[in-house]
Amino acid sequence: MLSQAIFTTSEMDDLFSSASQIKAMLAFESALAKAEYTEGVIPSAAAAVIKSVCASATFDAEDLEKQTLLAGNPAIPFVKQLIEKVKQRDAEAAKYVHFGATSQDILDTAMMLQLKTALTHCLEDLEQLEQKLALLAFSHRNTLMIGRTLLQQARPITFGYKVATWLDGVSRSRQRIEQIKKDNLTLQFGGAVGTLSTLGSPALSVKAVMASALDLNDSEITWHGQRDRFAEIVTTLGILNGSLGKIAKDVTLLMQTEIGEVFEGAAEGKGGSSAMPHKRNPVSSVFMVAIATRTPALVATFLSAMVQEHERAAGNWHAEWHVITDLVKLTAANLKHANDLIGHLEVDTNRMLQNLELTQGLIFAEDITAALSPKMGKAAAHTFVEQACKAALKEKVHLKTYLLEKTDILTQITEGVSDVGFGMLDVGNASKSLDALFDAKNAIGASTNFVDNVLKNKRINGVTNTL
Amino acid sequence: MLSQAIFTTSEMDDLFSSASQIKAMLAFESALAKAEYTEGVIPSAAAAVIKSVCASATFDAEDLEKQTLLAGNPAIPFVKQLIEKVKQRDAEAAKYVHFGATSQDILDTAMMLQLKTALTHCLEDLEQLEQKLALLAFSHRNTLMIGRTLLQQARPITFGYKVATWLDGVSRSRQRIEQIKKDNLTLQFGGAVGTLSTLGSPALSVKAVMASALDLNDSEITWHGQRDRFAEIVTTLGILNGSLGKIAKDVTLLMQTEIGEVFEGAAEGKGGSSAMPHKRNPVSSVFMVAIATRTPALVATFLSAMVQEHERAAGNWHAEWHVITDLVKLTAANLKHANDLIGHLEVDTNRMLQNLELTQGLIFAEDITAALSPKMGKAAAHTFVEQACKAALKEKVHLKTYLLEKTDILTQITEGVSDVGFGMLDVGNASKSLDALFDAKNAIGASTNFVDNVLKNKRINGVTNTL
Amino acid sequence: MLSQAIFTTSEMDDLFSSASQIKAMLAFESALAKAEYTEGVIPSAAAAVIKSVCASATFDAEDLEKQTLLAGNPAIPFVKQLIEKVKQRDAEAAKYVHFGATSQDILDTAMMLQLKTALTHCLEDLEQLEQKLALLAFSHRNTLMIGRTLLQQARPITFGYKVATWLDGVSRSRQRIEQIKKDNLTLQFGGAVGTLSTLGSPALSVKAVMASALDLNDSEITWHGQRDRFAEIVTTLGILNGSLGKIAKDVTLLMQTEIGEVFEGAAEGKGGSSAMPHKRNPVSSVFMVAIATRTPALVATFLSAMVQEHERAAGNWHAEWHVITDLVKLTAANLKHANDLIGHLEVDTNRMLQNLELTQGLIFAEDITAALSPKMGKAAAHTFVEQACKAALKEKVHLKTYLLEKTDILTQITEGVSDVGFGMLDVGNASKSLDALFDAKNAIGASTNFVDNVLKNKRINGVTNTL
Amino acid sequence: MLSQAIFTTSEMDDLFSSASQIKAMLAFESALAKAEYTEGVIPSAAAAVIKSVCASATFDAEDLEKQTLLAGNPAIPFVKQLIEKVKQRDAEAAKYVHFGATSQDILDTAMMLQLKTALTHCLEDLEQLEQKLALLAFSHRNTLMIGRTLLQQARPITFGYKVATWLDGVSRSRQRIEQIKKDNLTLQFGGAVGTLSTLGSPALSVKAVMASALDLNDSEITWHGQRDRFAEIVTTLGILNGSLGKIAKDVTLLMQTEIGEVFEGAAEGKGGSSAMPHKRNPVSSVFMVAIATRTPALVATFLSAMVQEHERAAGNWHAEWHVITDLVKLTAANLKHANDLIGHLEVDTNRMLQNLELTQGLIFAEDITAALSPKMGKAAAHTFVEQACKAALKEKVHLKTYLLEKTDILTQITEGVSDVGFGMLDVGNASKSLDALFDAKNAIGASTNFVDNVLKNKRINGVTNTL
Repeated sequence: MLSQAIFTTSEMDDLFSSASQIKAMLAFESALAKAEYTEGVIPSAAAAVIKSVCASATFDAEDLEKQTLLAGNPAIPFVKQLIEKVKQRDAEAAKYVHFGATSQDILDTAMMLQLKTALTHCLEDLEQLEQKLALLAFSHRNTLMIGRTLLQQARPITFGYKVATWLDGVSRSRQRIEQIKKDNLTLQFGGAVGTLSTLGSPALSVKAVMASALDLNDSEITWHGQRDRFAEIVTTLGILNGSLGKIAKDVTLLMQTEIGEVFEGAAEGKGGSSAMPHKRNPVSSVFMVAIATRTPALVATFLSAMVQEHERAAGNWHAEWHVITDLVKLTAANLKHANDLIGHLEVDTNRMLQNLELTQGLIFAEDITAALSPKMGKAAAHTFVEQACKAALKEKVHLKTYLLEKTDILTQITEGVSDVGFGMLDVGNASKSLDALFDAKNAIGASTNFVDNVLKNKRINGVTNTL
Repeated sequence: MLSQAIFTTSEMDDLFSSASQIKAMLAFESALAKAEYTEGVIPSAAAAVIKSVCASATFDAEDLEKQTLLAGNPAIPFVKQLIEKVKQRDAEAAKYVHFGATSQDILDTAMMLQLKTALTHCLEDLEQLEQKLALLAFSHRNTLMIGRTLLQQARPITFGYKVATWLDGVSRSRQRIEQIKKDNLTLQFGGAVGTLSTLGSPALSVKAVMASALDLNDSEITWHGQRDRFAEIVTTLGILNGSLGKIAKDVTLLMQTEIGEVFEGAAEGKGGSSAMPHKRNPVSSVFMVAIATRTPALVATFLSAMVQEHERAAGNWHAEWHVITDLVKLTAANLKHANDLIGHLEVDTNRMLQNLELTQGLIFAEDITAALSPKMGKAAAHTFVEQACKAALKEKVHLKTYLLEKTDILTQITEGVSDVGFGMLDVGNASKSLDALFDAKNAIGASTNFVDNVLKNKRINGVTNTL
Repeated sequence: MLSQAIFTTSEMDDLFSSASQIKAMLAFESALAKAEYTEGVIPSAAAAVIKSVCASATFDAEDLEKQTLLAGNPAIPFVKQLIEKVKQRDAEAAKYVHFGATSQDILDTAMMLQLKTALTHCLEDLEQLEQKLALLAFSHRNTLMIGRTLLQQARPITFGYKVATWLDGVSRSRQRIEQIKKDNLTLQFGGAVGTLSTLGSPALSVKAVMASALDLNDSEITWHGQRDRFAEIVTTLGILNGSLGKIAKDVTLLMQTEIGEVFEGAAEGKGGSSAMPHKRNPVSSVFMVAIATRTPALVATFLSAMVQEHERAAGNWHAEWHVITDLVKLTAANLKHANDLIGHLEVDTNRMLQNLELTQGLIFAEDITAALSPKMGKAAAHTFVEQACKAALKEKVHLKTYLLEKTDILTQITEGVSDVGFGMLDVGNASKSLDALFDAKNAIGASTNFVDNVLKNKRINGVTNTL
Repeated sequence: MLSQAIFTTSEMDDLFSSASQIKAMLAFESALAKAEYTEGVIPSAAAAVIKSVCASATFDAEDLEKQTLLAGNPAIPFVKQLIEKVKQRDAEAAKYVHFGATSQDILDTAMMLQLKTALTHCLEDLEQLEQKLALLAFSHRNTLMIGRTLLQQARPITFGYKVATWLDGVSRSRQRIEQIKKDNLTLQFGGAVGTLSTLGSPALSVKAVMASALDLNDSEITWHGQRDRFAEIVTTLGILNGSLGKIAKDVTLLMQTEIGEVFEGAAEGKGGSSAMPHKRNPVSSVFMVAIATRTPALVATFLSAMVQEHERAAGNWHAEWHVITDLVKLTAANLKHANDLIGHLEVDTNRMLQNLELTQGLIFAEDITAALSPKMGKAAAHTFVEQACKAALKEKVHLKTYLLEKTDILTQITEGVSDVGFGMLDVGNASKSLDALFDAKNAIGASTNFVDNVLKNKRINGVTNTL
């Protein structure tokens, strides 16, 4: 499909190619032989030959793929061919290839090794994304725009605040991925039924040595049937994709012709429409929305597949493989698109200001009510403002224009604003005027404080923000 | 990944390759040019050149994949390059390439064309599978085995009955797929916002001619945002995979060492374990279970993606593409594995008989109770049999052996069996003996009638069964 | 949860209450007794007593719920208590209660009976919805508005066209539901392992009589383990919810403050915000979006649960129950909200016209290019229009205003428009002026034809449209 | 539905009742008033009245449910009624009810408070379950049984080992839940668009005081649109249900008539079948499988719903509510069933030993090969054993019986076993006999070491195991 590049990256395609999987399996076999020699299970000479063959052997991936259909999993033909290759060098050594291990040991461990690389990539991209988001939030800390709830204009915020909420979610996902990278990447090594029964007493020390050699965690017990470690990796990536999808959704909405507050950077040939010159089509954000639509079901599949029979499962283990790799590829692509998107996002601050005026002052009705309440009483203030809004709408004038003609009311507002007893009316100290009540920058509340909170200790322009 | 051949077929890999997608897109453009000429929208000469270029042009798929990342979808760079190629032949003709069409027209239609091929393949495989299942059900119409509920031995059935239930579900899926192949494969052609606004009055006739030329259904209205036709294809395949998964699950369970009633055919190198010579590992059925675990979530993703914005969506359309192709590939693979499985299934009828004896007659307790009831009363009969079962279990003797010593009871049974008033005791007409009550073939009820029902009009050994 | 009424209807709550389930189970037992008497399996007197008790007996639902936890399913305690109640009237008759049936027979059949009622309700609501959509499409057949793709303004359509696409999808779902109501509502009756082994030779005729009495389809074979009939009901409802979600999503987008083209009807207290008088919050459409987000996963769960073991499953059958009822409830609620939404939708046709002007003529650039092409050549025309658009944007003037100053160009346009050789330029016959090219009603293509296609044979204001 | 008790617990039904939700919302309003008074935002007297009304007010839940349908969410009618109730006591105080808060603040926070209780319940049940599993693993540390892979008998393990793998997964889920209980339970308080704009400068301190008062975490920034905290709770529960489903699946498989190694405890009326006295139907484990089938899709729904628009979403927030509560209820039910299951599990250790004999020694073929290899060479040993196995199978004799007749081979085995160079042959030190090679307890490898690893620091019989 011509669209495949949307849903993966070349790094991840390489990482989850047959060739890379073979490489990871060779790493397993090599580490196994070495650990078994170290712990006195197999002869030194055999280990040396196996290690050497693992370092240089090449495999016919296509042939292995075909054999997999008969064997039931890729490890069986792989080991068979590896034994053959070792035998060609040293028949005695061939006896000790894969000694004591089972197919699931090698495949689970290879996946863990591949995931280590994948998570490292993701974390790099996430850190870049965080820096871009931090810079964007910082740059637009005070950029006024309307906040929207239920897709309706509600009250003013700053664009920096909006971006800071995005960053907030992404940062937590980055922390979660760091945590699972530390906790969940674990060696699988148990032999046929998980008991390492062919290794005798050195079994557990072989396992420990292998884990250390492969830089994976060791486990308390074989986990052939306990898939929660993989599951947590999968769900953690699932959550990240949700957070990225939210950013993308916001961008597609802000790019609407009728809103036009942000735009994807206009790379040559990107998103344009020659027939429709006014269109600035979202591209990266559309890809991100598509990915966020696809990832939840992969998570569900993995969780469904956790119900695995006895010591090794009849199907649900097989179901995991492509679910994990598809999810990782989608995640990596999502992060790539997100970096493209945020790194080149164009912000139309004028349009943001224009859109604040779209309701002709009605978005400030609540502020007027609050200013009137001290003198007028809350109920009366509310009734008055409600009627004023209706009248202004009907007469198609700005609410401020309408109010300016009600001189009796004006006094009460001014007094109300000056009569600061609490809350939002602090703002009155500064201006004590109707203008102040219709000035969006007086209505953004803690927007900038929240931005500052989120930016604390984040890197902005290469410098850690120690604010 | 070395495991990829498990989850697809080479036919489907080809069908959904970039090359095949390009071919389908060329078919669209060619049909479009021809229809527009026929209906007087574009000049004859232009149509001829376009058709000729579509027939011979070659595209650099990799380049198109790359351009897709900038353009947002594969149709944009494809059309651009097609125009270029036509221009090289005839600059005037180039003006009429893709005239009045939009990206989604070409991509949706190409998918429909690819699905036509895919569904044809699936139907062929389904028909083969039905014939294999029919033959299996027919051959084992009378083969006694235990029926199991909640994974417990319950009462006897025939293996033919079990296979007939599999066939019953598969047949309905085949009929559904035939139906959607007829109803749902539909041309998409609407232009930018679906109104065919650049075509003028011949718009609808162009559309009709194209549909006919491509052998697709025409639609009442553009369906850029109405995805239910694809959705029904997707859900229908989803249901089929569920039915195949059920067959596979049954086989894995019947292959258990402790049951051992059926086995996957032992192809050279298939499922064997050199280290564990007693193992007959399921392979095809394991793949089928894995596939059935993966397909439901793809269906859910498609349904989630149905919520598409306005005249053409910002993301959810993109989300569909690989969901459809992944699902079709998984379905085709599932059918391939199913044909392998059923075509070579080995049935151990002796083991089936042995397993019927495993409870030492307890599975017939209900029959004894029924036979005793007419004379003894149902409650007393039940109490007696319950105690007899406990005693037989405790003494580790066959229930029949236990009962043979209770001569007073025997009389009542014989009389009860002869005293046929209704129901199951018909069987007594034939045997009037305790033996008959412990004979599984007298306890299979309508098993064979059901087999006959299902086999009616099915093809068995190449002959339609007109029973 | 206080929010539960959003996700169900009182009719569906009643229908899937324990009381209604008991009623459906009594219908099964009553029909069973009668059919078994008719076919000579049980005595007439027993059948009469059972029927009579089924007609009058009351059950303690709470007690049955509690017993279900021990028994494993609700049918076991229900039958036990029914036997007790019959015994109180006639000990002999009690022997024949539930004769030959198993728990799954009664529970599957009860579900089918409940679904018959549910689907009838849904179809009524769907027909109402179709009529409302038809009226809306008819009323706004010619109402001009901008069409939007990728959330960008693209080219003009009519609101009637948009509504017709909604109706198109909903109609197909209604047809599908009619079909499954006819095909899929099927009696389950097979006894312990599906073979009806306790009924003897009249087994199949008892089954046929029951099916007829309960107005359900009879089946070729017991389907305890073949769940595709339920699955197709589930997926069909899943698709409908997707189509409804698409309508709702469009409405929430059209209700945006910055677009403001349609609004939910302002029922007293609905969607208003006293603090923010300018807000017209979506309510029904928000509920519909929420429901469409929830339904796909239920479909996936059902499909996952299709993999059921042997003759009756150990868990996946249980998994079905609430998935079906939750889905039906959500569907019924979605239809209720949809009827509320469409029945009271307010359309701001002026705002639609204003929004068509938002790009100051740029949405018509393609039309200008087309008009210029015959004289100027397509490439030159394109280049010219592209520059004109940029200039107009920069100078912040309407594209028409800009072009009016280019008198040399004007001539070419006029000539181009008059030089009608094909396609869109037919429009030129009517006006031959620049005004015509900037008039949205000349750019809606086949919008109204499509509306007419979809409205054919639909009921509008109580009359079938035979156009 | 009579089956509802299977999928929830009475505690969770109470916790997520409308009444409890109202209580949680009152806690929010009470804490809000108090914090606003403390930080000087509202008058002390008003706060006192509000607190007092919150402590004593009763609400008509049914009425609120109905109002929710108009208002769009339950918080709107709730706050309206609360204001009314406060007004009845003190009109002035009524002005300060819900001051500065928005619907999502109260509903998200109420959910967090309810989840705190829910997670506490789950953790208690999890700890109980761990203790039961620990005791079971400890008791059966050395109980021999066959390990099974791909549903085939493979090699011996101990039942304690199997249980320890279950416990291993459950323990990690418990730790994860402890972690999210600490990290993720967070106050939501942001006002209309999240900026706390009506509170003025004390906004952040009010928020901090509230968080502390409600014993919830405070956040860096409002998270109305960032749903990852809830998402992580949801995915964590999803993983737990997968691990519980795996346990249940194993139990249903081990309870098969043909295996019969464990049984659910026979509570009065549980799982029995009067008609089929030999059946010991799984009940709790069947419920657990059903729940594990249902939970993954709920997780997917939540992740899908993470894509929320702008400052507060139009539908996907609503989609969350019942997904969270359904999932928590299912989880609590799963834990209840798991405690029932494990607390009363009956283990048939004799049947386990019998099943080890089912293959007549073939499961030890690998051990024989290993013992023969040192003298005979691996390849020759393998060939010999393969032929021996086939011969034994054909002659229907035990592999040991067959080998005992091959005296020449016996010598080599004995020598091989004594010739301990590595691995599994350590066992030979103890017995140096063929018997030892066919003794399962010599083939369990590190089973008991793994049990010991997992049991370290677990509570067994009320005592922490400090082994």
